This record gives sequence, C-alpha cells and structure tokens, in this order.
Amino acid sequence: MAGSVTEMENKQVVLTEYVTGFPKESHLAVRNGGKIQLKAPQGSVLVKNLYLSCDPYMRGRMSPPKAGGDPNFASFTPGSPIQGFGVGKVVDSGVAEFKSGDFVWGVTSWEEYSIISNTKTLFKITNTEDVPLSYYTGLLGMPGVTAYFGFHDVCAPKKGEYVFVSAASGAVGQLVGQFAKLAGCYVVGSAGSKQKVELLKSKFGFDEAFNYKEENDLDAALKRMISQYNLEHHEGVHNLAAMIYKRVRMQGFVSFDYFARYSELLDDVVPYVKEGKIAYVEDVAEGLENGPAALVGLFSGRNVGKQVVAVAHE
Amino acid sequence: MAGSVTEMENKQVVLTEYVTGFPKESHLAVRNGGKIQLKAPQGSVLVKNLYLSCDPYMRGRMSPPKAGGDPNFASFTPGSPIQGFGVGKVVDSGVAEFKSGDFVWGVTSWEEYSIISNTKTLFKITNTEDVPLSYYTGLLGMPGVTAYFGFHDVCAPKKGEYVFVSAASGAVGQLVGQFAKLAGCYVVGSAGSKQKVELLKSKFGFDEAFNYKEENDLDAALKRMISQYNLEHHEGVHNLAAMIYKRVRMQGFVSFDYFARYSELLDDVVPYVKEGKIAYVEDVAEGLENGPAALVGLFSGRNVGKQVVAVAHE
Repeated sequence: MAGSVTEMENKQVVLTEYVTGFPKESHLAVRNGGKIQLKAPQGSVLVKNLYLSCDPYMRGRMSPPKAGGDPNFASFTPGSPIQGFGVGKVVDSGVAEFKSGDFVWGVTSWEEYSIISNTKTLFKITNTEDVPLSYYTGLLGMPGVTAYFGFHDVCAPKKGEYVFVSAASGAVGQLVGQFAKLAGCYVVGSAGSKQKVELLKSKFGFDEAFNYKEENDLDAALKRMISQYNLEHHEGVHNLAAMIYKRVRMQGFVSFDYFARYSELLDDVVPYVKEGKIAYVEDVAEGLENGPAALVGLFSGRNVGKQVVAVAHE
Repeated sequence: MAGSVTEMENKQVVLTEYVTGFPKESHLAVRNGGKIQLKAPQGSVLVKNLYLSCDPYMRGRMSPPKAGGDPNFASFTPGSPIQGFGVGKVVDSGVAEFKSGDFVWGVTSWEEYSIISNTKTLFKITNTEDVPLSYYTGLLGMPGVTAYFGFHDVCAPKKGEYVFVSAASGAVGQLVGQFAKLAGCYVVGSAGSKQKVELLKSKFGFDEAFNYKEENDLDAALKRMISQYNLEHHEGVHNLAAMIYKRVRMQGFVSFDYFARYSELLDDVVPYVKEGKIAYVEDVAEGLENGPAALVGLFSGRNVGKQVVAVAHE
C-alpha cells in the first residue's frame, strides 16, 4: 500500500561484556533486535547489510573504554550491536548523495538492517560488475586501503628491495605481497599453517614463505631466505636498539587517513583484478548466526584469507 | 738534523677487558705505549691528537665481538688503544690530500700520536678562526652531523610542530633543540639534573624542560607541557602498539650515512655560531690521564654538555 512503511525483524550481534585477553564466542550473542521500520530518518540512510567485515582492529573496540582514545576506535557498548565495516544496499535514503537501490560500503552495525547517520564515511559502490560485492570489505574496502597506501605511501619501497610480510595470507597481507611483487620487490611472507604457506606461494606469488609456528629459529629462517634484510624482530621489544644500526623505520598509520584518496586504489587495482594479476581469497561465513565464531576465529587464525560474514546476498 | 726521524713517547688509553653492563674506569688503563717515530707510512697520515671525543656509541665497541656487525662499530681489542672521533694536527703525511700542519678530524686512537691509514674518513679543518678546534668533536663533528641530518632529514619537522628531545643537554641533544627552535618548533627537553635543566632553558632556549629523575608521572609531565604530542613513551617497549593509532614514526639512522653532505652542516651552522644564535657547551677533561673517567662518566650523566678530552692544545 502506497505510503505505508514496511517493518522487518532485525537480527543483531551484540557484545555481552567487555573482553580481557582473547575474545570468546560467549562475548558475543545473536539476538532478535525487534522490529525496524524500513524508513531512513532525514540525514541518514537505511541499509540492508549484505557482507560484514571481520577485522583484527575490532578487538580493541571490545575492551573497556579508555580516556582520550580516537572516537573511530571507541569501545562497543555491551548490549548493543557491534560495529564494523560492511557492504549494504540502500533501502531508503534521507540524504541526496544516496538513493534506494545503491550499493554502499562503510561503517555499519552487525545486524540485518542499519540506520547509518554518519554518511560521510559511506562510499557508493559504482563497479558491481568486475568484482564481487564482498570485495568491498577487503580488496576494495578498508583492508585494501590499508594495504595499498600503507605499502605505497608509508613503506614506499623501491624496485628490487626485499619485503617481508607477516600475517601474509590475511586480508591485508595477501595484498601487500601482491602489490610488492607488482612493484618488482622480492617478497617473503610468514603465516600460521601449512595451507596458508602453500597459498602464499601458489596463489599470491610470494617468492618465499614459511610457517612461523614451525620455525624454532626465526633468525635462521629469515637469514636462509633473505640474508640482507631483517625488518621484523620477533623477540619483540627487547632489541629496539637494533633499529639504529640497521637503519630501520617503524611507522604507525591508520587507513582512515587515506580514505580521501580511495579512487586511486580503484583506478589502480580494479584493472589488475580484471586481468587476473591480483587474486583475493575470502573466507565467507554464511549467516549472521555464524558471525561471532567468524570474528573470534580471527584471533586463532582459523580463517584462510579475508574473513567475511554474509548476512544476505542481495 | 735533516732526514732524521723524531721519536716520541706515546701515552695511550687501552681497553683492559670486554665490558658487560656499566663500564668502569678499571675497564680502561692509561699506559706508556712505547716510542713512536713521527713519520707517516705511504698512504697514511701521522697526527698529533689534540681533542678526543667521548661518545655513547663507544660503549657498544667495549662489548665482546658479535658476528655480522657493522665494521664501523667493531669491538675494541683488549690491550690496544680504544678508538673514537678526535681532532688532530698532521705531523707527517704520506698522502697528497693532507700536509704537515693541517688540522683534521675523524676516527683516531686514544693516544698522543696516531697513524691513521683510513684517510677517507678524515676531514680537513679549513675554518680554525670562527670556532674552537674542539668543536670539531661536537657541533662540527660527528654529533653535529647526527643532530643536523637526524633532525632535518630523518625527523623532518614542520614549523610549529612540537619537538621533544631526551638527553637534551648532551652533545647531540643541545643541537637538536637549537635547530628545532631555529626551525620554528616548540621544543621540550628532558635531562638528568637541575643544572642541566637550567641550561636547556637559559642557554639553549628550550621552551620547556624537566628533570626526568624528579618526575614520578612522566605522562603527566609531558601532558602538562605538550598536550598534543607524546613522541616518546618511557614505559619503553610495552606500548609499541600505540605507534599505530598515534601514527608514530620511529626511525634509526647512522650519522656515517650523511658524512658526504658534511659541507651543508658547515655552510648552515657556522654563520649561526658567528652570530651567536647557536651556543655549544663542552665539558673538557684535561689530559689523557683523565680520559677513562671522562668516558665512563658519560653513562652516569656526570658530564654537562659535550664531553671532550684535551690531550694537547696544539
């Protein structure tokens, strides 16, 4: 009936309590969030969530609140749906930039339908033909921005240099390795299982790869493969002084700072995907019910490739 | 008598044994090294050492040898004179680039007379009028190169940014602070005594300074003074993850890499010294006998300003 507003049940994944140490599935609960009117308030959009992104930074948002933190990384609220990056379809729009039927990616909530009021951080997806929609949680989403600008702008390698990537089969690592190969670097990756190590070499074209869980002597493992380069010291924090003589640069960055340059990533990377020169491996959990296990599984390395939760396929 | 070669007694400071932990005076000994002929072999120069530089990096060279180290920082040999930067006067020359009477600075040995065979790392001192000769162990020597290129090239600050300098009254720190003020930065320094903190403010023009030994809560001390900037976390190595969200860059560098650009330092800094816009404070120990105490004293902060040992004044 014209003018009527549809109401839908809205399943959600909520934080049950703040997390200390490793997160467990019991820290998250799937619940029925009640009915939601499929109508966007003025200034907001109402989206149907399709794909939700599981990212390691979300662990920080499960911790108790800290004073003076970046609001982008504020703690979740126990009893409320958790938030993260996702791909959705606009059901109703209260802003001029988006219209019903648009596909978008950006920060949303873990539920079937979300009202997104901060539409400044929402990107309209214009290319739905050359890449799967889910890639906008990965290759063409936040992890892609992290890998692309982190590698090209922050790391800024030269052709022929040696690049070492840890967590190399993950959402960001698999891209850094492939970007580095395209840039003419010699690329070594580490990952936590035999299967992942295989993937690095067979699928992503890493020059060398090893399972860090099977190496007793990491120094030796790195020396065997990349005798001139030793970027990462896994003893961790006791040998920072080595940074001086080895002229090491260690630099933190946040992908949000590069979102304004997102189009550079699209222009550069999509053609490579179409030519088959960049591959992207996803690990898709079907259904919001499997969201907690998928998110928690990140921290034990259960996922192979980018972990996504498919809430709906359209 | 023409053609005769003068022989001189040659006092030396030798390493007695490799050092573990804090160095003590007993790790060094002053001895008579026997007679030396004041004649340079072909390809070498023979210098009379005037000023020897006490630098913290020398501690590393007192440790037992490690495999695969940079030869510039190789361990000293017990029983032999230690080495370091110094200023000397050429007594006899076996190379075309230097002649008797030239003043030079570079790596020499802790003794009265040295034969320097690696003359590639020796700089001829052309300006002996505008600055004291001893400054070529500091402001216009290796610490100057460290401060100048470390600040301008590695740190690369912009006008108006906040700069925090630790060990701020030392050979390098006092310069970094003054370079930062000349670059229009807001400069905060920490040092280990009231006297040094006074010096930072009264002599070197730091905007703020504090005695790190008297601060119970360093976070609070830094917040009180530089609320927007928190470059150095003194808890040390447990909070490296903060580098990510705070977009911190931590970068090691070695001054040797910039020696080829030494003339830039001279061109830029000497005029400031002549105009009185850069001050340099030295702590000069008189006589090679006082060398061991001067060098060891670095590590307890006994020195105020650049620690130099005057072997002879000409």
